[in-house]
Parts: sequence; C-alpha cells; structure tokens
Amino acid sequence: MRLTNEQLKLFDEQGFVFFPNCFAEEEVELLRIEADAILKTDRQEVWREKSGAPRTAFAAHTFNESFRLLAHHPRLVEPLRQLFGEEVYVHQYKINAKAAFEGDVWQWHQDYGTWARDDGMPLPRAMNIAVFLDEVMAINGPLMLIPMSHKHGTLAAGHDKLTTSYPLWTLDKETVTRLAADGGIVAPTGKPGSVLMFHGNLVHASPPNITPYPRKIVYLTLCAVSNHITKFTRPDWIAHRDFTPIKPVDDDALLAYARAHRVAAE
Amino acid sequence: MRLTNEQLKLFDEQGFVFFPNCFAEEEVELLRIEADAILKTDRQEVWREKSGAPRTAFAAHTFNESFRLLAHHPRLVEPLRQLFGEEVYVHQYKINAKAAFEGDVWQWHQDYGTWARDDGMPLPRAMNIAVFLDEVMAINGPLMLIPMSHKHGTLAAGHDKLTTSYPLWTLDKETVTRLAADGGIVAPTGKPGSVLMFHGNLVHASPPNITPYPRKIVYLTLCAVSNHITKFTRPDWIAHRDFTPIKPVDDDALLAYARAHRVAAE
Repeated sequence: MRLTNEQLKLFDEQGFVFFPNCFAEEEVELLRIEADAILKTDRQEVWREKSGAPRTAFAAHTFNESFRLLAHHPRLVEPLRQLFGEEVYVHQYKINAKAAFEGDVWQWHQDYGTWARDDGMPLPRAMNIAVFLDEVMAINGPLMLIPMSHKHGTLAAGHDKLTTSYPLWTLDKETVTRLAADGGIVAPTGKPGSVLMFHGNLVHASPPNITPYPRKIVYLTLCAVSNHITKFTRPDWIAHRDFTPIKPVDDDALLAYARAHRVAAE
Repeated sequence: MRLTNEQLKLFDEQGFVFFPNCFAEEEVELLRIEADAILKTDRQEVWREKSGAPRTAFAAHTFNESFRLLAHHPRLVEPLRQLFGEEVYVHQYKINAKAAFEGDVWQWHQDYGTWARDDGMPLPRAMNIAVFLDEVMAINGPLMLIPMSHKHGTLAAGHDKLTTSYPLWTLDKETVTRLAADGGIVAPTGKPGSVLMFHGNLVHASPPNITPYPRKIVYLTLCAVSNHITKFTRPDWIAHRDFTPIKPVDDDALLAYARAHRVAAE
C-alpha cells in the first residue's frame, strides 16, 4: 500500500491520514479474540487501570503470532517506509483496551514528547499507526486529534504520574486550548479494521469509556532505523532495543493465518 | 408550545424528545453569561468537582432573574402540563457545568430513582428538561441516553458516594449492558438553545469532558403538583418544598429581559 499524493498532502497539512476498513473483518476478528485473551493474562506486559481493568498490553508482536503478522503487515509498514524514505523498525507496540465502563483517560500529549524525553529518540521520524479492533464510536472513548498541531514541534510538557496508572508527558490546558482554537478537534470513528496514521508530534487524547462497548486499538509505533533511540530508561518490552528493519510479510499473510486458525479451532 | 401527536408518540416509545434551537442565541447568551458568573461564586448552592472546578449550581431560579424566567418559560412548562394533564412545580433546578478539561462523569442512572429513594416522590410523574447553554458536541461530554429504557420501571441501584463529588443512585454494568443491547445509546448534540426532555426513568449518563469546550446544561425538573415529594432528606435548595403551581411567563419574557439587560450593560 502506497500513499497517494493527495494522502501525502493531507498528512503534511493535517498531521494524520485515516483509512476506513483497511483490514477485513475476517482479519480483525482473530486479532480481537487474541487481544481479549492477552488482556486477561497476568504477564508484566499487561498494565491495568486503577480500577483493575486492563489498560494496555505491550509487545504482543513478540509473543503472539497474529500480532507479529500485524506488526509486519505491508499495509502498515510500507506507507511509513515511503514517508521516511528508509527502513523502519518497531519502537513500541501496544494494545490499548479502553475497556467497557472502566477504560480511563489518556491525557493530551504528543507521542514524540515521550520518545524524545524518555527514550532519547533524535527526531520525530517515528509515528503511531492505530488499528481499530472494535468499532470506534463517538461515545466509547474515541481518539481525539488536534489537526495541524504537529506543526508546532515538541511542546513543553509535564510528567503526569498521578492521573492514570501510566506515566505520560502531558500538555497544559492553555496549550491545548490554543492549538484547538486553530485546528479544532476531530475524533475519527469507524468500523473494526480502520487504520489511522498520525504524526509523532500530533497532539491527541482520548476520554474515558463509560459505555458497555469496549474500544480496543492497536498502536504500532514504527521508527526510521537511522533514528533509533539512544537512551534505555524503560524496559525493552516498552521501548524496543532491536533496531532490525522490518521485513514485511505478504499482504494476505494475516488473512491466511486467520483462516487457518479458525479451521484449526473448529 | 404543545407537543404534536408525533412527538407524544416518540416520547412514549423512546422516552425523550429533542428540540434543536428551541431558544434563540439572543436568549441563551444571557443565560450563559449569568451561569458562568454563578458557577464562580462561593454560595452553598454551587458544588465543585474533586478537582475544584464547578460541577453544578442548584436553585438559580430562586436568586437570578434570567434563570427564574427560564424556569417559568412556556416552552418548557406547557409540554409538561400537557404530558401530566395537570399543574407542575419546580422540584429541582441545576446548572451542570461540565467544565472544560475538568467536568467529571455522571454515572448511569435514572433521575426518578433518586427522587423516589431520597425525596419520597410517589410516581415518575416528573421529568428533566435539559436546556443547552453551550454547544453540546460528541466530544465535550454529551448527555448519553438509552432509548426505551424508561419502559423498565425503577431499576435496582446502588448509592454511589465515591466516584464523584455528588452522591447518586447508579445502575450496575450488567443492567446498563442489557438495556443498551435493546435500545442502543444516543447522544443528542446541538447548538446552544436546544432542549431535550426525557422521562424520569430514562437511563442516562455523561462522560468526563477532556476538551477546551465547556458544556453547560440547565436541568429544570418539573413535577406534577399532585405527585409532590413526601420526604425531606435533602436541603430545600436541592429538592424544593414549595409545591406552588408554576404560572408561565409570556413566551417573549426571556427575550425582552435579555434585550433590556444588554442595553443596561452597555
């Protein structure tokens, strides 16, 4: 999958590109089942909300075959190789649960703010690709983006260790208000299998989920290989230290695995 | 303003009726300014979030002329007299702030659950009328309703005194999940001046507001006079004890006051 000139222009101007229905339900169904199973486990990679509900599972591509295939999927990897003009590696891999009734807030932040401060990543030549595993609706804690906010570089931030169970470098109210006055706030919604790519400096957040509808999203963070991190302050299953370029799998690899897996289960 | 047969049918089936742009911006602007001023005061009627931001202001109709006119407005009072077939009085009056960045959750609940348990209100012959003072958007903590949930009577509830600064009789996850499987969840959005009337047993909630956009709503609770409360466990500025029937003002009374007020202020 290559980005069109129009998509490249949109990404440059707005800071994100949205691809509704990028993966078929047949592909996503397996990921959803596997994600639910992983989020129930007690491994160190699974972080919980203050309430005890699952918040995020790290590094599933290192211990689960379907998520390994997703991390190597050409529909995600190739656009980033195109954008960065070089090979990419997996810097971070999260399944964010945003559980029904209990999924808590992710405060306003830039991803690159954390990668720079905590991991010593030289430049914002890395970005998150969000893959919706559940339907993302306006009501179940969607990702909110401030268009054009990636044009402001890395903004001043405070290290919030209190609001949620996960420490994050967050922006203050004045900054968010100012940026939203320029760009507004959008919350892309869509069916499972939709994909959202957004610039490492794009300001975003997501509200708590008070509905009965879970809202799981996989965040695959790909970084240009030449831009690999230089500080190792976080565990290697949070900020990876293996900078080997990703070799994409075939476009139908996930589908084939999903079909084989389903047959095996029956 | 009288409800049409179609609106009456909708209310019976769905449990709510929405009136976009029921009040003109000229009328709402004054209410918004007055609400902001009231929410900044230290009076006992103003309750705060755990963060200190204003959460709700009670009984503004008893000490503020523009909110007194709103409580007596024929566009709000007459549909309720029509529905209940008798005179109505003000049971409760709230300005819910849902402040930018800090407005906290209102958990899933039925209003009548609280009026029955705390105030000894005999029947669900009372309801809330929501008047939007700010634009209610999908992203700034809109009111979420479960259509048709009013058909289930008064559901079992627990008294939640911990989640927020305001004690509330709330429903459990299983109940909300079951009701939403039937009716879905809707979150009416609209410009300032829009009005939402909903049955006292309609299950609803609202999520925290993480955006820079405040989302103030006035909740006018009108009760059939013959159905007045019988227990006085809450202060009389929360659950009123004056059961005098409301005598509506003229339809243009709020507009005239807003215009006079603006002239006076200039």
